Amino acid sequence: MREIDPSDPILSPPLRIGHGFDLHRLEPGHKLIIGGLDIPHDRGCVAHSDGDVLLHCVTDAVLGALCLEDIGQLFPDNDPKWKGQASDLFMNEAMRLCDEMGYRVSNLDATIIAQRPKLSPHKETIRDNVAKLLKVDRRLVNIKAKTHEKVDSLGENRSIGCHCVVLLVKK
Amino acid sequence: MREIDPSDPILSPPLRIGHGFDLHRLEPGHKLIIGGLDIPHDRGCVAHSDGDVLLHCVTDAVLGALCLEDIGQLFPDNDPKWKGQASDLFMNEAMRLCDEMGYRVSNLDATIIAQRPKLSPHKETIRDNVAKLLKVDRRLVNIKAKTHEKVDSLGENRSIGCHCVVLLVKK
Amino acid sequence: MREIDPSDPILSPPLRIGHGFDLHRLEPGHKLIIGGLDIPHDRGCVAHSDGDVLLHCVTDAVLGALCLEDIGQLFPDNDPKWKGQASDLFMNEAMRLCDEMGYRVSNLDATIIAQRPKLSPHKETIRDNVAKLLKVDRRLVNIKAKTHEKVDSLGENRSIGCHCVVLLVKK
Repeated sequence: MREIDPSDPILSPPLRIGHGFDLHRLEPGHKLIIGGLDIPHDRGCVAHSDGDVLLHCVTDAVLGALCLEDIGQLFPDNDPKWKGQASDLFMNEAMRLCDEMGYRVSNLDATIIAQRPKLSPHKETIRDNVAKLLKVDRRLVNIKAKTHEKVDSLGENRSIGCHCVVLLVKK
Repeated sequence: MREIDPSDPILSPPLRIGHGFDLHRLEPGHKLIIGGLDIPHDRGCVAHSDGDVLLHCVTDAVLGALCLEDIGQLFPDNDPKWKGQASDLFMNEAMRLCDEMGYRVSNLDATIIAQRPKLSPHKETIRDNVAKLLKVDRRLVNIKAKTHEKVDSLGENRSIGCHCVVLLVKK
Repeated sequence: MREIDPSDPILSPPLRIGHGFDLHRLEPGHKLIIGGLDIPHDRGCVAHSDGDVLLHCVTDAVLGALCLEDIGQLFPDNDPKWKGQASDLFMNEAMRLCDEMGYRVSNLDATIIAQRPKLSPHKETIRDNVAKLLKVDRRLVNIKAKTHEKVDSLGENRSIGCHCVVLLVKK
């Protein structure tokens, strides 16, 4: 799948769009890692890896834009090798494939959905981390945070979700 | 609405972005059709048509990018004509309009959300079906699958959802 | 952050993608304002401002594409200044920043999710309002409406949500 002639204007288009979605259950006794940052909270993500909802979402958006296998296929959650794995490894592999296919990130916009904790104090650090992993200037990366107005699992502090979109451009 | 001068660089921009969302309730005694594929499961989609959450989502993203009426307006779910209708008809109409307006699909990235069944064994067939309907090479179409971590209707096998983004480019 | 050399092809890319998400709780005794339109319903949005789920979502998508502070940072919901505020003010500020950074809207596609009321009778008015606020022709703005099939807060008339994507292009 990765052997595409980079001069083919249809199979290797000037721009590629990607969408990511991820959600993790929140439970007491787990860490809450977002964008590589360990954030103090009364609970954290139940996951096989470190449960970084933002990095998983961004990884899937990049892989999705490239039409490659998704994070769950590249790093199966029943493989003991990825147990407790820090998610920057997933991002690095997605960006290696991105580079290999001749693309770079034009810009990325992500929305984290969580009722608590307040993410605004951590937003700029998270943004710096994501920009570094995407190998772009922080001014091309945006991280928003929204609550879920106290309804459903996202609003009841029982889960944390993320949506993002990315535009890749040919190098 | 469809009479736009294709040489107008603003009203007929080089690229168009679209977003689709769809969700169906899952109940025993119904078929589960995803991307035109009949998938064995203990339940299926409650819907007026065949309830293909992926094709509905993709159809709406294409129509949305073109700023045309959505799937519910073109094919009302109270019209007996569309009862049990296979959703490739909706896709074909969206692609006919896309072609008529002078666009083709640059790439598409979709995320199906369902707790069960496991969709990975069916992913490549679904992808081929969607690519064929979108009239593009399969390497420009991406289908991801995520669970909803056992929370809310999506996580409790009571519904199935889909998000997708598409980039259309002028022919 | 806003001082970017507009001739820098990387920091000021030809196109920018943005994603917006918003959700409000619905309760009796509140107004339901969508796209600036007061829509008759048995309940409305609990919010600090006028609770316009669509305009908040669109504002965040534009700000997100520009990688600027989000609506909650620019207009904090604990600031009495924004109590009951009509949301066109938020949109106008986002568009002022968009113009200042040298971009205009190429096209926008939004999906409103609500079980009730039926939004189709209001769709074209809402679309006109949003297009006017985005300073583009209505044929570049798309508003879809979906139900949530009676499940979760969105399906039980206890909340209303919105997703949108936007493509900005350099002027």
